[in-house]
Amino acid sequence: MKSIIQILQEKPRLAWLFFAATAVIVFLIGLFANSIMERRGEEKTMFQLVKPIADWEPRNEVWGENFPREFESYTATLDTTFRSKHGGAATRDVLEEYPNLVILWAGYAFSRDFNQARGHYYAIKDIRNTLRTNVPQPGTCWTCKSTDVPRVMNERGVSEFYKDKWDHLGDQIVNPIGCQDCHDNKTMNLRITRPALAEAFQRMGKDIKQATHQEMRSLVCAQCHVEYYFKGKEEKYLTFPWDKGFRAEDMEAYYDSVQHVDFVNTLSRAPILKAQHPDYEIYKTGVHAERGVSCADCHMPYRSEGGVKFTDHHIQSPLNNIANSCQVCHRESEETLRKNVFDRQDKVIEVRSRLESALAKAHIEAKIAWDNGANENEMKPALQLIRQAQWRWDYAAASHGGSFHSPLESVRVIGAGLEKAQEARIAIAEILIKHGVKVPVTLPDISTKEKAQAFIGLDMKKLHEAKIEFIKTIIPEWDKKAQEREGKMSAYGEK
Amino acid sequence: MKSIIQILQEKPRLAWLFFAATAVIVFLIGLFANSIMERRGEEKTMFQLVKPIADWEPRNEVWGENFPREFESYTATLDTTFRSKHGGAATRDVLEEYPNLVILWAGYAFSRDFNQARGHYYAIKDIRNTLRTNVPQPGTCWTCKSTDVPRVMNERGVSEFYKDKWDHLGDQIVNPIGCQDCHDNKTMNLRITRPALAEAFQRMGKDIKQATHQEMRSLVCAQCHVEYYFKGKEEKYLTFPWDKGFRAEDMEAYYDSVQHVDFVNTLSRAPILKAQHPDYEIYKTGVHAERGVSCADCHMPYRSEGGVKFTDHHIQSPLNNIANSCQVCHRESEETLRKNVFDRQDKVIEVRSRLESALAKAHIEAKIAWDNGANENEMKPALQLIRQAQWRWDYAAASHGGSFHSPLESVRVIGAGLEKAQEARIAIAEILIKHGVKVPVTLPDISTKEKAQAFIGLDMKKLHEAKIEFIKTIIPEWDKKAQEREGKMSAYGEK
Repeated sequence: MKSIIQILQEKPRLAWLFFAATAVIVFLIGLFANSIMERRGEEKTMFQLVKPIADWEPRNEVWGENFPREFESYTATLDTTFRSKHGGAATRDVLEEYPNLVILWAGYAFSRDFNQARGHYYAIKDIRNTLRTNVPQPGTCWTCKSTDVPRVMNERGVSEFYKDKWDHLGDQIVNPIGCQDCHDNKTMNLRITRPALAEAFQRMGKDIKQATHQEMRSLVCAQCHVEYYFKGKEEKYLTFPWDKGFRAEDMEAYYDSVQHVDFVNTLSRAPILKAQHPDYEIYKTGVHAERGVSCADCHMPYRSEGGVKFTDHHIQSPLNNIANSCQVCHRESEETLRKNVFDRQDKVIEVRSRLESALAKAHIEAKIAWDNGANENEMKPALQLIRQAQWRWDYAAASHGGSFHSPLESVRVIGAGLEKAQEARIAIAEILIKHGVKVPVTLPDISTKEKAQAFIGLDMKKLHEAKIEFIKTIIPEWDKKAQEREGKMSAYGEK
Repeated sequence: MKSIIQILQEKPRLAWLFFAATAVIVFLIGLFANSIMERRGEEKTMFQLVKPIADWEPRNEVWGENFPREFESYTATLDTTFRSKHGGAATRDVLEEYPNLVILWAGYAFSRDFNQARGHYYAIKDIRNTLRTNVPQPGTCWTCKSTDVPRVMNERGVSEFYKDKWDHLGDQIVNPIGCQDCHDNKTMNLRITRPALAEAFQRMGKDIKQATHQEMRSLVCAQCHVEYYFKGKEEKYLTFPWDKGFRAEDMEAYYDSVQHVDFVNTLSRAPILKAQHPDYEIYKTGVHAERGVSCADCHMPYRSEGGVKFTDHHIQSPLNNIANSCQVCHRESEETLRKNVFDRQDKVIEVRSRLESALAKAHIEAKIAWDNGANENEMKPALQLIRQAQWRWDYAAASHGGSFHSPLESVRVIGAGLEKAQEARIAIAEILIKHGVKVPVTLPDISTKEKAQAFIGLDMKKLHEAKIEFIKTIIPEWDKKAQEREGKMSAYGEK
């Protein structure tokens, strides 16, 4: 039999064909390898601004002309169709679902109105519309709502901004959370625009400028998705209570050390700490943070369109986008992963509901004790226990996604709250009996939001009417002034 | 330039060398590929018994002569040097660490003596030595301790075995948990030798014979590492309470439906359910079970010795062997993985300790209520709450490794227990006040095991003396009889 070598030697044309085919194949392999390397190198892709963006430019659509894909996906935060397992749309009324919350927040604006947060695009609209802004609020309340905030802070100074009144700033703050909150207008690098986070780092002896890019992919979120309070009666200086650590107990120790009280519950007269949304803090105790996964990895996963890879700015629940978020690391089916999330959430909610119910009873029983002649000295230890229990409940309840981000830490904290709430109820039972009240007391019907709000003495009709008047008369003025101001700004570059 | 083809044609010796080198390389690749395929096919490896093993052969060393590697690793369960994070050796005294347990178990043998379980090799030794076997126990107590159990059950019948007295069977049951508990003596296939598991499956409408090999790698463990009770006052028939499901609430519903009470706490007089060790049940609610990981995957990982791959029969905490267990799937460092386990355990233990302490207080406060004239009608609701709370505590506490296998489920159950324990304490506080007792009551000092045991009225000196006498007089008789019996059995085949 002839060897291949002999055949090729005898038929030079065949040899050339062989050579050419090899060359073509090698060329195609090269092309393919290059494509792979390009994907790897994407994070280093340079960009060129089509149109320069002015410093402190608040308008997202102006940034969007340079970054159409990012902008388009950002506007998808308008979508409110996402439904959780429990059926609620993103606009669900939390007080309706959990009427006990009205009792826990008696004397605080949250007892009037508390809806599930919607997408970033609604930040301005929702803060204008909520009944919580019927009461006078400081300028600080705007801090996390708008790309206008860095602009106004830069113009007037940070302290002046916080100290101002919320409604004085209404015409200034009109563009919802967006591009410049997280990005540098020249380099598009991630940046911190809100002072409170950088200041908290500084007090912990850390320099936020040393954060890695991957850390920044969480820290830009941590500008707002954290626990905070307004320091100083007049200053209302936005402050993160991180000086002693991130855990519920650490922050409580900080608040106790500065004798902070968010409100006094009007039923129990307990000095309450209202947790804001310690999302970043609880996330840091969970397994995803431990493995170096950032907020953006799951809430803003990479996406491809027409061969271009970019960060999806449709910030949302990863459950809405399991294929691009969870499944990048986890090999399980969408169905399995969704079930895993719901299972965790259900377990946390079960224990949290027990604490919620114990707290509602404690507040009402304390009120009955006061009504029957209990005095401050008697009540003080019980009220302190209610404060501690409610802080633990709220720490776990107020954190967006905490029951998934770190379910075990959530339940650990709730467990301590359960112990304290029941200790409070034991102490109050003793006081009740001492004052001749037969225990167990008969609790009022607070089975719906309306009944609970009536029980704590809210005139909801009046509140709604005032809000409607405000929306009819004040909001159009704000918007008109804002349009005039923005009309004087050129689309790009200087005003 | 000459082509390679031309060169080879001109120098035939070079061509031959080229051909020979190619042949050698291809041969080596083939060898390598074969080695890979062999590894893949290992689970199908056939074996031939060097010496046949008789039916119901209880002696592990007899099986071991056929399977020296498996036997050698099995004998490593003698090793007790493993230390947990908290410093205790495998022989740690749990009552010493958690004296509250003495209160929770007042009136039950566990209040005398409860050590952390040791390796399977110690099964016989430890049940002989524990103070819990000072009191008369049924034959059922032997069920999980020995390879002699299937032999005696086969000889005498299952019901007869259970009904017998523990000390009557002492000379029969002498070989610790081992080979034949899980393996068929001819095929070495995994098999179920304990009737209770198969019976529980049947009552749930399932046939355990349909279980896959991977399921069997957990089910052989589930013959013993489960919740169970002794059904019937005389029959003492080993029964798993799975008829309504695996969760704490499901088993409680089953126990309530058959009005089962393990013991009445001598302090509170609450009708208590003692959880055994619902290891399999809690594991089934965890993420490892959800992902199809079996008990053996982590507790008996594969191991290689001299090119032979085999299952490591040194059943132990995977923390002792992270490289071969966890790291087969998880890419993190040993240090990180160990920290992850301890973090989970610490959080569960924190919440569990709160419940433990609430329960101890509830039992003691109930005793004080009885002592001051409380009556059955008054106490009944509180005692029922104590029963429910203690079941939940024990369900989470008694499960070996439950705080890692399914930390969130553990804390969910503990959370419900916390609510119920405190509800019980509120009810008891009301009764105490009604009977003129000043609350809060002063609790006794139960800060050490000795103090707690003295408080519940145990004469530990007498118990220890009785045990020493038993070990001196009875045990040698049992061993002598057993040696005579085994002497009559040939090493292999028939007696």
